[in-house]
Amino acid sequence: MRAVRVHRYHEDPRLDEIEEPKLTGPLDVIVRIGGAGVCRTDLHIIEGQWAERMNPQLPYVIGHENAGWVQEVGEGVTNVAVGDTVILHPQPSCGLCLACRAGKDMQCENAFFPGLDGHDGGMAEYMRTTARACVKLDPSTNPADVAALADAGITAYHAVRKALPLLPPGTTAVVQGAGGLGHIGIQCLRALSGARIVVVDRNPAALELARQIGADETVPADGNHVAAVQELTGGGAKVVLDFVAEQGAEMDGWNMTGPDGSYFVIGYGGELRIPTLDIVATERNVIGNLVGTYTDLAELMVLAQAGKVTLHTRQYGLAEAVQALHDLDAGMVRGRAILVP
Amino acid sequence: MRAVRVHRYHEDPRLDEIEEPKLTGPLDVIVRIGGAGVCRTDLHIIEGQWAERMNPQLPYVIGHENAGWVQEVGEGVTNVAVGDTVILHPQPSCGLCLACRAGKDMQCENAFFPGLDGHDGGMAEYMRTTARACVKLDPSTNPADVAALADAGITAYHAVRKALPLLPPGTTAVVQGAGGLGHIGIQCLRALSGARIVVVDRNPAALELARQIGADETVPADGNHVAAVQELTGGGAKVVLDFVAEQGAEMDGWNMTGPDGSYFVIGYGGELRIPTLDIVATERNVIGNLVGTYTDLAELMVLAQAGKVTLHTRQYGLAEAVQALHDLDAGMVRGRAILVP
Amino acid sequence: MRAVRVHRYHEDPRLDEIEEPKLTGPLDVIVRIGGAGVCRTDLHIIEGQWAERMNPQLPYVIGHENAGWVQEVGEGVTNVAVGDTVILHPQPSCGLCLACRAGKDMQCENAFFPGLDGHDGGMAEYMRTTARACVKLDPSTNPADVAALADAGITAYHAVRKALPLLPPGTTAVVQGAGGLGHIGIQCLRALSGARIVVVDRNPAALELARQIGADETVPADGNHVAAVQELTGGGAKVVLDFVAEQGAEMDGWNMTGPDGSYFVIGYGGELRIPTLDIVATERNVIGNLVGTYTDLAELMVLAQAGKVTLHTRQYGLAEAVQALHDLDAGMVRGRAILVP
Amino acid sequence: MRAVRVHRYHEDPRLDEIEEPKLTGPLDVIVRIGGAGVCRTDLHIIEGQWAERMNPQLPYVIGHENAGWVQEVGEGVTNVAVGDTVILHPQPSCGLCLACRAGKDMQCENAFFPGLDGHDGGMAEYMRTTARACVKLDPSTNPADVAALADAGITAYHAVRKALPLLPPGTTAVVQGAGGLGHIGIQCLRALSGARIVVVDRNPAALELARQIGADETVPADGNHVAAVQELTGGGAKVVLDFVAEQGAEMDGWNMTGPDGSYFVIGYGGELRIPTLDIVATERNVIGNLVGTYTDLAELMVLAQAGKVTLHTRQYGLAEAVQALHDLDAGMVRGRAILVP
Repeated sequence: MRAVRVHRYHEDPRLDEIEEPKLTGPLDVIVRIGGAGVCRTDLHIIEGQWAERMNPQLPYVIGHENAGWVQEVGEGVTNVAVGDTVILHPQPSCGLCLACRAGKDMQCENAFFPGLDGHDGGMAEYMRTTARACVKLDPSTNPADVAALADAGITAYHAVRKALPLLPPGTTAVVQGAGGLGHIGIQCLRALSGARIVVVDRNPAALELARQIGADETVPADGNHVAAVQELTGGGAKVVLDFVAEQGAEMDGWNMTGPDGSYFVIGYGGELRIPTLDIVATERNVIGNLVGTYTDLAELMVLAQAGKVTLHTRQYGLAEAVQALHDLDAGMVRGRAILVP
Repeated sequence: MRAVRVHRYHEDPRLDEIEEPKLTGPLDVIVRIGGAGVCRTDLHIIEGQWAERMNPQLPYVIGHENAGWVQEVGEGVTNVAVGDTVILHPQPSCGLCLACRAGKDMQCENAFFPGLDGHDGGMAEYMRTTARACVKLDPSTNPADVAALADAGITAYHAVRKALPLLPPGTTAVVQGAGGLGHIGIQCLRALSGARIVVVDRNPAALELARQIGADETVPADGNHVAAVQELTGGGAKVVLDFVAEQGAEMDGWNMTGPDGSYFVIGYGGELRIPTLDIVATERNVIGNLVGTYTDLAELMVLAQAGKVTLHTRQYGLAEAVQALHDLDAGMVRGRAILVP
Repeated sequence: MRAVRVHRYHEDPRLDEIEEPKLTGPLDVIVRIGGAGVCRTDLHIIEGQWAERMNPQLPYVIGHENAGWVQEVGEGVTNVAVGDTVILHPQPSCGLCLACRAGKDMQCENAFFPGLDGHDGGMAEYMRTTARACVKLDPSTNPADVAALADAGITAYHAVRKALPLLPPGTTAVVQGAGGLGHIGIQCLRALSGARIVVVDRNPAALELARQIGADETVPADGNHVAAVQELTGGGAKVVLDFVAEQGAEMDGWNMTGPDGSYFVIGYGGELRIPTLDIVATERNVIGNLVGTYTDLAELMVLAQAGKVTLHTRQYGLAEAVQALHDLDAGMVRGRAILVP
Repeated sequence: MRAVRVHRYHEDPRLDEIEEPKLTGPLDVIVRIGGAGVCRTDLHIIEGQWAERMNPQLPYVIGHENAGWVQEVGEGVTNVAVGDTVILHPQPSCGLCLACRAGKDMQCENAFFPGLDGHDGGMAEYMRTTARACVKLDPSTNPADVAALADAGITAYHAVRKALPLLPPGTTAVVQGAGGLGHIGIQCLRALSGARIVVVDRNPAALELARQIGADETVPADGNHVAAVQELTGGGAKVVLDFVAEQGAEMDGWNMTGPDGSYFVIGYGGELRIPTLDIVATERNVIGNLVGTYTDLAELMVLAQAGKVTLHTRQYGLAEAVQALHDLDAGMVRGRAILVP
């Protein structure tokens, strides 16, 4: 089959002809890929940023944001059957460790992460995952339309879901960064809360989109934005969801957070520098967020199938993968680039 | 192997010689039984009370409160290995449905309940369960010492765990019934909360035991006990944990619950009759409780292995199963009867 | 001033000329009434149903659902000033007892309930309340437009707010009774959750309104409704909000609640009869609900001022109070009757 | 009366003869001081560290950790009466703003902080506070024995209380710093949780005390302590309560926190520097903590009066205030120094 593999860091991946994946255990599932999202993390992989943390063996197939149809199942698989339309949780988990038993899939002690940790991912015709990664969809769903929810979507939803108890009517949620993840986060907030939504972004088009999908206020990130949010909120927001968290945005995010507020870190790349007195005197929190649970993905798909969360996507053929990565790097992709084998 | 089977309702079960269980799926686990608790539910099974709800095919092996050693594992089992000492969650779950993914094992759509629903249970030399039912224990643990935690223990712990957020220092928890489950509940409350514990029971010896294991106050169930609890609590407790809930105790339990309080139903057999005005005017709740989760059992075993929860048990050989059931029915078992093959 | 007073049970109240209320303590507030809702509880008061529980001294002014303008304040009042537009929490609380300190206003040990417990209520030109009952509104708000949120609204909102954590996307909330409270509850659910909303009512017009304001499905209460909800939900809903809870609706509500589900009692008048085995075997809960907190009312007003919750009202003059009560009793009031002095 | 006042920063305070405080509003309470704790914050005040943030007018009476007897009450005070023994929440709150209504006393918009913000504190014979600061105690309580719970105690309790839901049996709580606050925190954890308690401190005597009052493990802060905690916990603790948070301890605290764990900042003085990738990749949180609520203080007093939390104190006369401050600064006070007028 055809597959997009990274052979060397700092080099474009290549479209290779490789063997199709095979079942290796009773809970394995082979999926025929219908759509694979192209993510900024793929660029980071190619740049070698994940080399040390994940130490994957090269070459391997990238693509960690996948949806498609079940092609083959192991003997222990009972939740999906051949032919089912599915979206895949990016990190198959064991279902047996204490973290899994508490529903904390991302903390599974035995998980793997196809497309990131050296296991072959979804920029290919077929991919191996496991039963616990498969969320069954309405058969009429086009996998290419929803694939981006498998990683960008679940991550945004997970953070919003954790923030909801802090956001009754009368509070404000600031969304920093209305891009791939952020524009999903805004829609989730709109669908699930009565909070006022303030969106901060450098890009006027992103702010325009934000208003269309539910933002109550938008603030251009023009250097005056922290003060602007402070004024809009009377001293800072109850919740700041930071989908950027690099290049100084992380300190802006913290400084837009009000007393008794929580700063949710979702993007990454920057560094927080915070005196402990500031944390104590205002009783603020910093909340880490990592992808999401299977339950999060299942819930998000309910919103998506009800039309409450929609995605802007641009499709590429598998042979155009490198082009898609270059377009993403150049900021030329509106919404999400999706590879369709 | 030898096994205790129910052949007909309203008849004593019999010790039969039957075939040993075999692996039937990749997540199956065969356990050599080290201890099987004898529970009031076993009496109810024999009386036919579960016939309609569970519709089991007779004969089958009873015993749903089991611990032992892993004898054989299916190919997909990774959490336990042959020789491990284990205690068994009573209801093996699938790990794939939405309830399982949220950690709600008792709501699993594909679960079975050995010893209750017609699947063979643990009053035998060996038993088949699955990987998701096995909690691994310190190898030095004697299964017969802890088996009763598999059902009585987990049930009491589950209810207490749900009640804890309602029980800060200054509040009162009433425990109605200090028998098999109740005396575990009292110990869990003592270990995990700063609430005042008031124990109500008809049996003076049970109240004496309650005082030894952590009750702050004891109240004999002599007909004046609702008024006594009302007086002790200034109008009713924040939480009532009712391990009886039959023969009128259920209305007592409700009536001992104060405004903004919660009445936890754990025992069963009686009927609540409550005007909706009483529920509304006092903003009280009735909380259902059913066994517990895998996580509950794992946590309880931590308490047990730290010596914070201990059990009174009396051991019988497998051949003495009928005697044990008769003793239980006659109220002649202090603590819990345990069959040791 | 003119005021509507109950002089004898089972008799129409009368429009009397009485003295204006005076400040009696440093936190007192005198409000000029702009609108007073006419509630089914007023009919119950006249019928003597609250006589025993509240033991009010007759005659007294009824009306417990009030909004208006601040006329005079005690020396300790700092949150509102003369001239402010306000809506009034129905039960002024002390702010000093432990319940108040935890934000549980309805459990205040020193509260009073004007219009219900013998203290004069709001069917008058002026009324005495306290600072802790006053929620300040945008000055442009017409009190008559929002008065019904002071009791009907807060009660519906409170129950919905408690249910929200149980209602992620993919779950179902059943609303039984789409009348005065129910139609507010539906709007709150729509604004604050992604759950599917199923509305049950006998009245086709109420179901039509329900669909307009956010119901996903409507079910006529025609005797087959429990089965219909069971089928729509695959065995019962996660949450049932019962705004009726009398004349058998209470058992319907319980029976529409699914495993691991919660039955919220908001209406009253009927009696639940539930075997404890049913509670345990399905792990269902019964949740009591009583009015709501000050915070609930403040949050609801945010939704109302954002146009997310709107009310159907019909205005009457103070002199038409008896007519309004008769119309309500005869089922001739669409939405809520409001007295405007 | 005699009172200890700060006249100039970087100078010892002086014992002055000043007028007794008077009632200024209907909710005011004058308290005869029975004990006033001497806190490290008093040293920081004298050093001018709070000058900019609080901008108090000098001179003023310090002392923010107070207990005593009610001497006089305003006309609106109903929760305490002349002669009552009371401990004082350090920050009297208004009871009318939204934060107060939600039980978040420290976020009150109208609070003041005697002894810190320029309002006269408790190192004096009498002090003015308000009804909402008074927690009534058993009349037999000696105020000097409990005064330290008013600030050190409530702060430690508040953080522990917030951490409890994260600490079921099987988890580990690390306490960094077993001094004035930390040794109360350890006792609260022991009384209210089944978590394993690991205590880190430089001082062998503090570790010895920690073991006596409930620590399961102690780790000397000898430079190897982060690795030691990592090993004890298999990669970091679920909760780290940092009562130091300065001089590098803050980064140690963060680094002892495991995946999905929470780092509670209670002490202050240092600076956190954390890459956002570290926050995201491990889904860790930083939790701010500021004193505590009235409810926290009331609950803590229940534990104290039950003997579950005890304090080491050393008493000084009011005239010895400067000596007490010097002793504290020199590290010569075991437990807490208390001024007794």
